[in-house]
Amino acid sequence: MNYQIKKTFFPVFLLLAFISSYSQVSVNQDRLEQRIFDLAKFGLQENGETERVAFSDADVAAQKWIVDELTKMDLETHIDFAGNIVGTKKGTNKNKKPIVFGSHIDRVPHGGNYDGCVGSMAALEVIQTLNENNIKTKHPFQVIIFSNEEGGVMGSRAIVGHLGKNALDVKNSTGFSMGEGIMRLGGDTTRIAEVARSKGDITAFLELHIEQGGILEKENLDIGVVEGIVGLKWWDVEFTGFANHAGTTPMNARQDALLAAAKFIVAVNGITTSFDGAQVGTVGRIQAEPGAPNVIPGKVVVSLEIRDLSSEVIQKVFNTIKTKTEEIAASSNVKIEFHPLDTTSDPAIMDLEIQKIIAINAESLGLTHKYMPSGAGHDAQDMAIIAPAGMIFVPSQGGISHSPKEFTAAEDMANGANVLLNTLISLDKKLD
Amino acid sequence: MNYQIKKTFFPVFLLLAFISSYSQVSVNQDRLEQRIFDLAKFGLQENGETERVAFSDADVAAQKWIVDELTKMDLETHIDFAGNIVGTKKGTNKNKKPIVFGSHIDRVPHGGNYDGCVGSMAALEVIQTLNENNIKTKHPFQVIIFSNEEGGVMGSRAIVGHLGKNALDVKNSTGFSMGEGIMRLGGDTTRIAEVARSKGDITAFLELHIEQGGILEKENLDIGVVEGIVGLKWWDVEFTGFANHAGTTPMNARQDALLAAAKFIVAVNGITTSFDGAQVGTVGRIQAEPGAPNVIPGKVVVSLEIRDLSSEVIQKVFNTIKTKTEEIAASSNVKIEFHPLDTTSDPAIMDLEIQKIIAINAESLGLTHKYMPSGAGHDAQDMAIIAPAGMIFVPSQGGISHSPKEFTAAEDMANGANVLLNTLISLDKKLD
Repeated sequence: MNYQIKKTFFPVFLLLAFISSYSQVSVNQDRLEQRIFDLAKFGLQENGETERVAFSDADVAAQKWIVDELTKMDLETHIDFAGNIVGTKKGTNKNKKPIVFGSHIDRVPHGGNYDGCVGSMAALEVIQTLNENNIKTKHPFQVIIFSNEEGGVMGSRAIVGHLGKNALDVKNSTGFSMGEGIMRLGGDTTRIAEVARSKGDITAFLELHIEQGGILEKENLDIGVVEGIVGLKWWDVEFTGFANHAGTTPMNARQDALLAAAKFIVAVNGITTSFDGAQVGTVGRIQAEPGAPNVIPGKVVVSLEIRDLSSEVIQKVFNTIKTKTEEIAASSNVKIEFHPLDTTSDPAIMDLEIQKIIAINAESLGLTHKYMPSGAGHDAQDMAIIAPAGMIFVPSQGGISHSPKEFTAAEDMANGANVLLNTLISLDKKLD
Repeated sequence: MNYQIKKTFFPVFLLLAFISSYSQVSVNQDRLEQRIFDLAKFGLQENGETERVAFSDADVAAQKWIVDELTKMDLETHIDFAGNIVGTKKGTNKNKKPIVFGSHIDRVPHGGNYDGCVGSMAALEVIQTLNENNIKTKHPFQVIIFSNEEGGVMGSRAIVGHLGKNALDVKNSTGFSMGEGIMRLGGDTTRIAEVARSKGDITAFLELHIEQGGILEKENLDIGVVEGIVGLKWWDVEFTGFANHAGTTPMNARQDALLAAAKFIVAVNGITTSFDGAQVGTVGRIQAEPGAPNVIPGKVVVSLEIRDLSSEVIQKVFNTIKTKTEEIAASSNVKIEFHPLDTTSDPAIMDLEIQKIIAINAESLGLTHKYMPSGAGHDAQDMAIIAPAGMIFVPSQGGISHSPKEFTAAEDMANGANVLLNTLISLDKKLD
């Protein structure tokens, strides 16, 4: 690890004793999985796969179904002005700020049934289990199903007051802009600012999610205790050579922008893997012009993405790439320019105390666990700006994500939901 | 050079003496350049650049203008069934087959004023000079302005009987198919087969063209004597990895199709330049899917083109690339497949005797020259199938071609036209 987290003193033995002082409750595994299947019916296609991009008819229908479910569980439920579903179970102490948990039900195009859905359906299952066991909590327990997570963590950005006005014009694959989508979901774009909450408004935030990386499955572990969500930086990298006839231009007279870009892609991989740590560097998009087999490409633009839990590591990898690029530019007679893109996010460190409470609850439930970063972005990274936040990961088969092949076993989902439920109870008892 | 041409015995001193036995004639340099400017008016845009893709209104209008010009020069002129302009100046001996020369006036989109146009306007200038000097030839002299050279050497393919029926459906950037375009030019798609000529129908074929490669300019030479037109082979190369989340998939668990493609592109360059010779290898087109900055590309397709004057060299370069590809596939955990494309052509060797007559005429005119291959395709490569063929290159500034920046100086054009004119006269005297 290249980043440093100051370890605070924490009396683990006291906490363990404290958790053991009440009998643990368990969710209903079959009911949880059935809700995953029920949710997958919203947007089900003829080929057996589900499509439910934010703002689609399927998204709107699924939202209504969840509002009904939460209302049936006696939660005070409403759609906020940003299109988030917010359901609140009262606490016994009226002065306490809510403990919030949830995830999202929107999906990427051609996505799977588990990303976001597991954390959402587990939130419903947690409420139902608390109700059945007649468990009262001091704090209000608030379920939030965030709107349009996949299209820019829209709902959670609104709640932390970071949803820019320009974002409302961005369209997703449904053809609706975020502004139009918010209205479709029952929000109100003219009143979005009213959903913003401040530090102190939320006692703690928890999100259960599938891991998406295949690490838990490979290491045969039950639970991932998320240390933080990696930050990411994006650049467009532009290679300017000279487009010329591929037949008449000798090899030594070429200014081949694609050759320079290819050297760059190989270098990004080599440099990213040359340092210890879990940082990742990716070139995912490439465009070469004019793009004919018999013309030497004169211009190429590629994307560069670097992610890590430490901003310093991101910068170090980038600096090394940039230095190497000067060498590539000189040897290829091609100009190379970096254009930083807006789509960057800072690393979001999860609350250390919550991390420990998650780990102890997992242990107490007889589940194996490891501390790990999240390489993917989540609503929790926004919520961490205004509240102590934690994330619980469960294994996803083969690390396949954003794909119809995405799969998490019922037992793994139930394990995660049980850790979520018992961590929430611990937090209710432990936090002020 | 990796290819072998058997040198035939040729009494050069006899030929020199023979050429010196008549006084050389010269074209009118200013008139030649003026015709280049006049031709550039067909398709002139507001930005001062000309667009004249085959079948466009500009192409049709320019064709009519040339027919008028040739008719004014007393040539028997018609449009053949493939849309070629054919103008014939009678010879003194009715039994002789024509000596043919010409080029094309269609242009690539965003092309220049010289590619094809120099050879075409020089053909007109040659006829006018012969007329002015009242020079009679034994053989008929036939000017052909070939239709749609840039879109697949259409007119010359038809003349050698190699224009396939499927080709007629291919559209160019005007939106017209070749079939529609032929009708627009005054041809007749139902009678194309009638334009095909056989071996023996043409005494010799000559084409003057700009060099397009910058070699003559760099070496400060006047004339290129073309040894042959390189053959080319095209492949699509398909890389199949696994698309996955760029944040959650560790570097060592990736099957990155774009990384493998990048290694391939670097290898194509390294291998092509590792052999002696003038062969070229190019990757000009690349497509990566799904093409998002935050997704590891799961599928990439690139084009591969290899050109050389020797089919054996093309095969040797390809075999070496293919062997290297197996190593890349293994190290990247990506499947790599080669799909050969139809768009291939065999090398076309120019007639050795004609090459020498061109060189001797250049020398006799006080012009420097070098023997060189043509990296670009030309109508001459088709004509070489049925007739002894030769090509004369003149310098093009900076080797820039298929671009509005294309430029050849008036003096260079006149040099080329004079070599063309005098070579034609030599061929008329020398050949049966």
